[in-house]
Amino acid sequence: MSALLILTSDADVYTGLIESAQLANLKFTSNPEECDIVLGEPKLIRDMLPRLSGVRWIQAIYAGVESLMDPSLPRDYILTNARGVFGELMSEYVFGYLLFHEKKILERIRAQESKQWQRPESGVLRGKTIGLLGVGSIGAHLASTANHFGMSVRGFTRESETCPEVSVYYHDPDILKFVQGLDYLVTVLPKTVDTNKIVDAELLNALPSHAIFVNVGRGNAVDEPALVTALDEGKIAGAVLDVFAEEPLPQDHPFWTTPNLLMTFHTSAISYPESITKLFIENYQLYAEGKPLKYQVDFERGY
Amino acid sequence: MSALLILTSDADVYTGLIESAQLANLKFTSNPEECDIVLGEPKLIRDMLPRLSGVRWIQAIYAGVESLMDPSLPRDYILTNARGVFGELMSEYVFGYLLFHEKKILERIRAQESKQWQRPESGVLRGKTIGLLGVGSIGAHLASTANHFGMSVRGFTRESETCPEVSVYYHDPDILKFVQGLDYLVTVLPKTVDTNKIVDAELLNALPSHAIFVNVGRGNAVDEPALVTALDEGKIAGAVLDVFAEEPLPQDHPFWTTPNLLMTFHTSAISYPESITKLFIENYQLYAEGKPLKYQVDFERGY
Repeated sequence: MSALLILTSDADVYTGLIESAQLANLKFTSNPEECDIVLGEPKLIRDMLPRLSGVRWIQAIYAGVESLMDPSLPRDYILTNARGVFGELMSEYVFGYLLFHEKKILERIRAQESKQWQRPESGVLRGKTIGLLGVGSIGAHLASTANHFGMSVRGFTRESETCPEVSVYYHDPDILKFVQGLDYLVTVLPKTVDTNKIVDAELLNALPSHAIFVNVGRGNAVDEPALVTALDEGKIAGAVLDVFAEEPLPQDHPFWTTPNLLMTFHTSAISYPESITKLFIENYQLYAEGKPLKYQVDFERGY
Repeated sequence: MSALLILTSDADVYTGLIESAQLANLKFTSNPEECDIVLGEPKLIRDMLPRLSGVRWIQAIYAGVESLMDPSLPRDYILTNARGVFGELMSEYVFGYLLFHEKKILERIRAQESKQWQRPESGVLRGKTIGLLGVGSIGAHLASTANHFGMSVRGFTRESETCPEVSVYYHDPDILKFVQGLDYLVTVLPKTVDTNKIVDAELLNALPSHAIFVNVGRGNAVDEPALVTALDEGKIAGAVLDVFAEEPLPQDHPFWTTPNLLMTFHTSAISYPESITKLFIENYQLYAEGKPLKYQVDFERGY
């Protein structure tokens, strides 16, 4: 019999969904010392880790698990994160904002407010080039949507080149070649020591001045003062940020008033309990049969 | 030797593009009496029709050719319109606005302006149902984008059921069944006597109150006072209109101040001379060989 501890703010929703799946040999527990399985939010799990003496498998409900990567924390368990569930949501977010930009939706709303029958030429996605910083399961989904809209896709990755919808891959140290001539640069990188401030002044200056930068990965990837300067000086045309070095964004942060910067607040892809539970059940069945779990995190890589 | 008359506001662009294709046995003319081929805007062509005594083929640069459908006008020529070139542009427009709505982009911009770190739940396209009023080449492209985003697609057509990405077809008189439960209703209908005010009070009231209505076809399809009432009374959640019964929209039209109504000004799909020229060249080669032309308009149907 396995014992599952759920550590999320909506534990009752997860409990209901998992209960109704009637999984064999699984009971729920609220005792950290008793559980062998944990399902939950990485930050809540990190605080509980010292007491999880019998844990063998932790399923994170997010993609980002940087809270559990501190080398001082125990690593004597299998950590799996949520993958394959965020790509569709991220695509809706990223392409929603790219189309908002190209179709000049805000300018048109303002024209309407002043009763102006205006016909400014709007832009198109078709024929444009998007660069993906990071091509995991989310990047692959963004690539498929870009393909649907007739765009070219470049990918910058550490290793994998498995996505057929990416037409050209770039690797270290060719990051400046990667961004040259891009219409859109989208970051979907996890937070690791290698991704810190990868989007810096040099990279932003290498982008065309009409480029739009989108960050839906983690805030650490951006040198924030450099991005403010790039937008202030018109080095790039705009930015859309869902993630920040510090969240919530401090009230005195210059981003609030930086021109051509649109912000959302870490909501580009939400963990829907239904999707995460499906993924948990799939992995639980593998766990119960002693088989390798899906979406295992490599503690050395950090994702 | 054929003689081509170009009747568009950017005739020099078309002339340059066609000249550089070096088509055999084709010369340009500015004399309406001399030409056997006309390429141009339907309204300009209509005004010239009485003088086009030798015309055998007219290629319209738009999809909508209602200006040429008046029964009092000559019909002793082959009329082809522009098809297959607007679907991608229409998809960008329609899904740009649907994502703008679902992602609550305007609300988020306002939250940012007031320095509010807000996390309102945004909606998703995935799992939603879109209804297409009209499933020609534009409707088929909208269906493919809807499929890409994981949506269900219903189609309402007079006859054709050839689009594999439409999951259910409806026909007259089942239009109220067609709209029942739709999340989005999109009109891509041509202007004909059969499409006049097809979107009326009864149809709008049959939509769910959270539904969004989009018109990228022709303005005649909408009973405009009924749409104002539906939006005023919250019978539907919003509308996006690119076309109107009268264009430009009169300054005293109630649409300017109707709540939850976004307007653009007949710009959802522009005729790019490069795309239209490609289509003209393809048809010219068929014409020169005496073969049937592509995209022929049926004067009886009106499209």
